[in-house]
Parts: sequence; structure tokens; C-alpha cells
Amino acid sequence: MSEATSDVRTIAPADADVLTPEFVRAVVEATAASNVAEIKRLIWPLHPADVASLLNVMPAAARRSMVTQLGSDFDPEILSELDEDLRTELVRALGTKNVAEAVKELDVEDAAYVIEDLEDAEKREVLAQVPIEDRAEVVDALLFEEGSAGRLMHREFVAFSPLLTVAETLTRLAAPETPEDYQEIYLVDADRKPLGFVPLSRLLRSPRSARLADIATDDMKIIPATTDQTSFAYLFEHYHLTSAPVTDDAGRLVGLLSAGSVVEILKEMHQSEVLALGGVQEDESLSAPIRKITWLRFSWLFVNLMTAIMASIVIGFFEASLEKVVALAILMPIVASMGGNAGTQTLTIVVRALATKELNQANMWRVINREMLIGGMNGVAFAALAAGITWIWFGDLALAGVIAAAMTINLVAAAAAGILVPVALKRWDIDPAVSSPVFVTTVTDVVGFVSFLGLATWLLLR
Amino acid sequence: MSEATSDVRTIAPADADVLTPEFVRAVVEATAASNVAEIKRLIWPLHPADVASLLNVMPAAARRSMVTQLGSDFDPEILSELDEDLRTELVRALGTKNVAEAVKELDVEDAAYVIEDLEDAEKREVLAQVPIEDRAEVVDALLFEEGSAGRLMHREFVAFSPLLTVAETLTRLAAPETPEDYQEIYLVDADRKPLGFVPLSRLLRSPRSARLADIATDDMKIIPATTDQTSFAYLFEHYHLTSAPVTDDAGRLVGLLSAGSVVEILKEMHQSEVLALGGVQEDESLSAPIRKITWLRFSWLFVNLMTAIMASIVIGFFEASLEKVVALAILMPIVASMGGNAGTQTLTIVVRALATKELNQANMWRVINREMLIGGMNGVAFAALAAGITWIWFGDLALAGVIAAAMTINLVAAAAAGILVPVALKRWDIDPAVSSPVFVTTVTDVVGFVSFLGLATWLLLR
Repeated sequence: MSEATSDVRTIAPADADVLTPEFVRAVVEATAASNVAEIKRLIWPLHPADVASLLNVMPAAARRSMVTQLGSDFDPEILSELDEDLRTELVRALGTKNVAEAVKELDVEDAAYVIEDLEDAEKREVLAQVPIEDRAEVVDALLFEEGSAGRLMHREFVAFSPLLTVAETLTRLAAPETPEDYQEIYLVDADRKPLGFVPLSRLLRSPRSARLADIATDDMKIIPATTDQTSFAYLFEHYHLTSAPVTDDAGRLVGLLSAGSVVEILKEMHQSEVLALGGVQEDESLSAPIRKITWLRFSWLFVNLMTAIMASIVIGFFEASLEKVVALAILMPIVASMGGNAGTQTLTIVVRALATKELNQANMWRVINREMLIGGMNGVAFAALAAGITWIWFGDLALAGVIAAAMTINLVAAAAAGILVPVALKRWDIDPAVSSPVFVTTVTDVVGFVSFLGLATWLLLR
Repeated sequence: MSEATSDVRTIAPADADVLTPEFVRAVVEATAASNVAEIKRLIWPLHPADVASLLNVMPAAARRSMVTQLGSDFDPEILSELDEDLRTELVRALGTKNVAEAVKELDVEDAAYVIEDLEDAEKREVLAQVPIEDRAEVVDALLFEEGSAGRLMHREFVAFSPLLTVAETLTRLAAPETPEDYQEIYLVDADRKPLGFVPLSRLLRSPRSARLADIATDDMKIIPATTDQTSFAYLFEHYHLTSAPVTDDAGRLVGLLSAGSVVEILKEMHQSEVLALGGVQEDESLSAPIRKITWLRFSWLFVNLMTAIMASIVIGFFEASLEKVVALAILMPIVASMGGNAGTQTLTIVVRALATKELNQANMWRVINREMLIGGMNGVAFAALAAGITWIWFGDLALAGVIAAAMTINLVAAAAAGILVPVALKRWDIDPAVSSPVFVTTVTDVVGFVSFLGLATWLLLR
């Protein structure tokens, strides 16, 4: 948070697209010409988040060169805005001395973020150059798991005894050593356990003689420091929290989480879920090295190759039928593809409903019935459509009947797989977004081919 | 925001799952027995958000009955927690008189949310029973589009002249008519245009004689009231805003958006994006009527039926080849399926990068090259694998060569379609998340079948 008007920057208007191709080219050219003054002139008016975006779209060599040239003039805030791949790349380009300076200047949670992916030896080298009190806090943050409340919490907060009066509180808050940015006063008992809080706006409206205990609310969600981000982000979403106290193993108040920090966390979580459902690893970003990305995508496609081969083996069982009736080969992808799409619809709804806890034990059976019913109704509808098209195309009523039956069977199977696969994975503590799509489409491929080719063999070719 | 300790509720601990099947059953039974005292005893300790979840998992008839029985004892806050389908259903069950009471008690943005999906006649009936000043504000909110800053902003805020001293400000904030809950003081000029803001924590630390102008920051993003939620949510994410001023057409300050409200909006936006990518309409929820859902899914599956038929027509062109070499029918789904999965990977990355503005004009060509290169490399890798498997399976080296060539072609096509389709849709202002998947898989199906069957016909069957 920038302090007073002395620090005011000219911020580009909200809707302007700062990173035009011309602007990026100008920065790249200034970097190539080692014109540090020009680089500074160009990037100084930008918000650190925009400089991070700029680095993201610059060619890798140019961005490393720019960071190296800026050295100690590189704004540490930018580092905390970078995504994983870029952050470690540029931290290395900056050198440990500059990174140590950055760690000193940043908030503890941001400093931990900046160095968390370095090798242990690099971390030690950086931290050795950081004053002991800052170092202790950063190390403490790093001892919590990535994504836990203890790692992500803000460590500066205001906590007072509930016995303090409003007047005494105002005097204390006027002291220069008070943290810079806070929005409520937490009340703690003698053991520093959180009892409640007083929003600043309420403090200012209260009689000066009132005690904090009299004007506090205890309507808060206490978050243990080991809580994972998925769990506390859910609490913020569900209960519309603006902030929440974080406690250590002994229940003592050790930090805060705010809606502002949860906005960032939600962005990451959202990213992971969308990418997982699309068969992409969560740590893939546009700035990740191509070799790494190719490998990440390869491993996923390899799993899909295995399931595709499985489907082909299933088709192979009906080789004789395919040789006799070539229409079967022409039509079989329709049944499989419709099943795949219907299964994806159901699994998407179920993965989301599990994430938002909309789907739970209390309504599980109702949702299963609902999805089976929808699958059945759409199964019948598409059975009729597919049968009609087949009849017109091939003029074969028996073949039309076969595709109708197979379509109904596969859309019901799709609904069943779409709900049962993610629910089962969730119960076994496997992320349903990552693994459901491949299982569900394997089911719909196999059921689609077996039902269509099997029924055809049984009914048409005996 | 609950006021002082008098209003404190016992909140269940954060990790407890409140809605056990037993609890839901107890509520349903109390409702069936028309035991209003028991319903109240059960739901009173719950947060309104949890009551909303409870209603969501209750059978439709039971939840309507419960709401009707509670009548004026139904907490209005619950209404603002419900999702679309449920909200309008229960608003109708409550009756206009109770809804009018709720509208009076809720914040303007929540009141607008509660009645926004009612028919115009119903809205008029509700609003006629709301006092004139509340009504005017709700109508004003409803005149902004759904999802715009003007609809979603909070209308209570504190705005003062920059000439006020800290001491004068503190006196004004102590007055009982000050809004209940605010975190910063906005500075406005004589035309009520926002000039900057002072966080309350900074106000309390500043000398009492200082003028607000001297301690303010103008590092803020001004959001015009017509701004869509996608745009302002991006600003909150990107710049880590905790709040932002909303202005009318004349640039006057008319409301605020806070990180807390953006958390809710992000949840909705995330939901829409995931569902769209999964081929589900964004307004589908677990509580939507089955007939509506079946129809929504039907329309999407119908589009997919058309593309599946297109793929089958393509296969039909090669009927003669399929009759001669049945192995083609067995292997062809592998090429199409690998292309579909690779295309989905690329499009997922691109849809996300477009949403986060990570992908823009400045790095477009680099990303296109990158994706084509990844597609090519994985194309070659899977060509080798598929060829090896085909050789072992069918002992036919020429067939192995055909599948290798087709696999490479289709994975490169998948990369091209995966990036170009969403980018083109975005340029034409069509939501890329909704429409990309069907286009991309159509491309990979058609290219997969044409390249495999075409090459086979040309090379093996002349």
C-alpha cells in the first residue's frame, strides 16, 4: 500500500491496454541497447502488476537482460506479481544480493512466495543477507506448506485486550509503530486467543468510554494456520468474509487473511480447476519452457492414447461384423461421441457442485436420480434422432433400431459415469477435476462401441 | 454485518459440515409436521448462507412449505444467498408482502438481486409496498444491466472534501448517521468527482491537524457504473484492489466495490467458465427444474450430434476403403481422439490466457509458434508410438506409416485450431469458453478421419 501523496504514481486509466505491441517493442529495444534510463522511463509509470505482465510477454532473453540491467532498481513488488516459472527465472537473473534486498522490503508472505521455489542452497544464500528478524519471519512462513493459511497469511495486525476503552484504543492506534494497513481490531485474551473483532468504522462511531468487549462481534471464522487454501477460500466465498483470524496450534492469533488476498488465491484455484478439466497440468503457463510443457502435455496425451487403444481393441472384437456391414464403421463414432459429450456435461456439473459443496451426502441420491433421469430423457430423444437419420441415410430399419438402443444405453451410462467417477475420486481424496474426464470418456467410448457393435452383431448378423 | 454483541450468533466451527443428512431430515420432518417452533430452533443457529445451502438440498416441495410457514420470520439475508433458480422460486413462495419487507431490510444491491428475475408485474407489486426512498434506490440499481458495476456496487460510503482536517473527519465519523461499514474515506471535489482516498488506519495514525488531502493516495482505479463484472473483476485480481470507487456518467462518485463482493462475483464467473467449457449452460444449478436442464443439455448435445454426423459423412466417403481393410475402422478413432484431446489442451490454455489477458497482441505470434511447435513435437512422438503399436498389432508397415503421418497432421491441426478458434471468437466478441470446444473437436475429428482414411486410400489401396 503506497503511503501518502509523496508516493503517488500516475496510473493508466482502467480500460487502457497498457501493453501494446509498440510499447513492448520499445522496451525490448531499450533493453537490447542497454539503455537503462530509457527502460526506467518506460516502466516507471506502470503498476508492478503491469510490469509483471510485460515481463511475461517479452522474449525470455530480453526479460532476463532487462532485469539484470535494472539490478537494485528493480521494484521488489514486481517479483511478488510474477507467476511460478517466471519468478524463479528472474530471481536467478537478479542475483542473491538484490533478492535479499527485495525479501527485506516485501511483506513476509510475498517474500516467502518470491523464494519458495528456489533450491535450498539458494534460499540459504539469499536469507543469509537478510537481517535476522525479517529472516526469522520468512523462514517461519516457509515452514508452512505451500497453499496453507500459515504461508499465505498477513503477519501484521492489531490485537488488543477486550478491556481497553475506545479512547485508549484510539491513542494506541495513533502511535507510529502501529501496522500500516489494517481494517479491524482483533480482541485477544491473555493467551492471545482471538475473542472477536471491532471494525474500525464501528470503533469510530462508538462512545469513547465504551470497552472494546462491548462493541465487538464474535461472528468470525477462525482459520488454523495449517488449513489448506481450498478450505479457507470456500469459507470466504460462502460466508462473504472480509477477513479472518489465523491461529497457531495453540489457538493463538498469528495472522490474518483478507478478502483481497483470497481474490488472488481464487484466481490460482480457478486456473488449476479449468486447466485440470482440459487435461493440462496446473503449473503450465505461457512463460513456461517449451520442453517442460511438451512433456506435461505428452504425459496426459499418453494416458489418452492408452484409453483410445482400449476402445480400438473393443472395436477389434467386432471385426467380422464391420467387414460385413460397413455402415457400422461409419455410424459408430456418433454413439461414442454423444456419450462423451453427455458424460462431460454431467461430470462438469458434479465437479463444480463438489467444489462448492452444493453436492453432499444430504442430496446425493436425489442428484444421482436427477442425472440418470436427464440421461434417460436425452437418451430417448437422441435415440429417435439418430434412428431417423440412420433410416434416411441407409434405409435400414433394423440398423436404426440398433443405433437407437445403443444411444439410450450410452447416454444413461454417461450420466452414471459422469456422477459416480468424480464422487468416488473425491471420496478417495483424488482431485476429481484432474482425473474424471479420462475415466468418463473411457467409459462412454467402451460402452458406446460395445453396445452399438454388440447389438448390431447380435440382432443383424446372426 | 451484525452489530455489537447483542446480535452475536453461535457460529458452527469452520470445519464442521453443518448439513448432515440427519439434520436435513430433521428439518424436512419439522416442515411436514408444520412445527414452526422446531424449524426455527433448528435453523436459527445457522448462518444465512448455510440456510441457503439447506434449502438447496431440500426437496422442492419441502423447501417451499418451510418458507411459507416461516413467512415474516424468514431472514431476508437468506434470499440474497440463494442462486438464481431457487431465489425466484422462494420469493414467489414467500409472497409479495414478506418480500417487500426483505427488500426494505437488505442492502440495495442485495434487494435488487432478490427481485431481479421476477416478472415486471411482480416487481411492481413488491416495490409498491416498499417506502419511497428505498424503492428509488432499488429501481436505480435495476436500471443498470445485470453484472454491471452499477447493479452490484454498494451504495453506502463515506465521501468528504479534501480540505477537512483529520480532527473534523473523526468528529463527523462519530455521528450516528454515518454508514455502518466502510474501510476508507473517499475524497471528492465540489462536483463529487473522486480525487483519492484515505484508509481508516492511516487516518488514525495521522496528526489531528493534517488535511485529508495531505494524507490521501490517488492510487485507485475508478470504475464507471456501466463497467461489466468481467472487466472490473480483472482489475481487482490484477491490481489486488481492496476497494474501488464507482462513478456515474458525469464522473460523480455513486458507489463502491470491495474485494469481498468481488470474491462472490469471481465465484459466479468461474462457475460460468467451467460449465461453458464442459458444454453446460451457465444458468444450470443443482436446484434448477429437471425439464429446464434436460432442454439446456439437449440443445448442446444437438450441436454435437450435427458435428458427429459431419464426421460420419466424412468417414462415409471412404466406405470402399473400409470394406477392403477393416483395420482402418479399428484404428481410426485413435487418431481422432488424440487430436480432440490435444486440441482441448491448447484451447483450455488459450481460453484462460485470454481471460487473464496473459495472451494479447504483443505475444500472439510467439504463442502461436509455441503451440504449433508443441503440437509438432508431440505429433512426432505419438506418430512413433501409434506406428509401433499398429505394426505389432496388424504387422503392416505401410499401415503403420499411414497412422504416423495422420497422427502428426492431426496434432498440428489440433494446435492450430486450439489457438485460432478461441482467438477468432474473442475478436468477434463471442465468449470463447462457450463455443470453442465444439469447433475445435469438429476440426480434429474431420482432419483425423480425412488424413487417416485419405492417406490409407491413396497409399494402400490404389
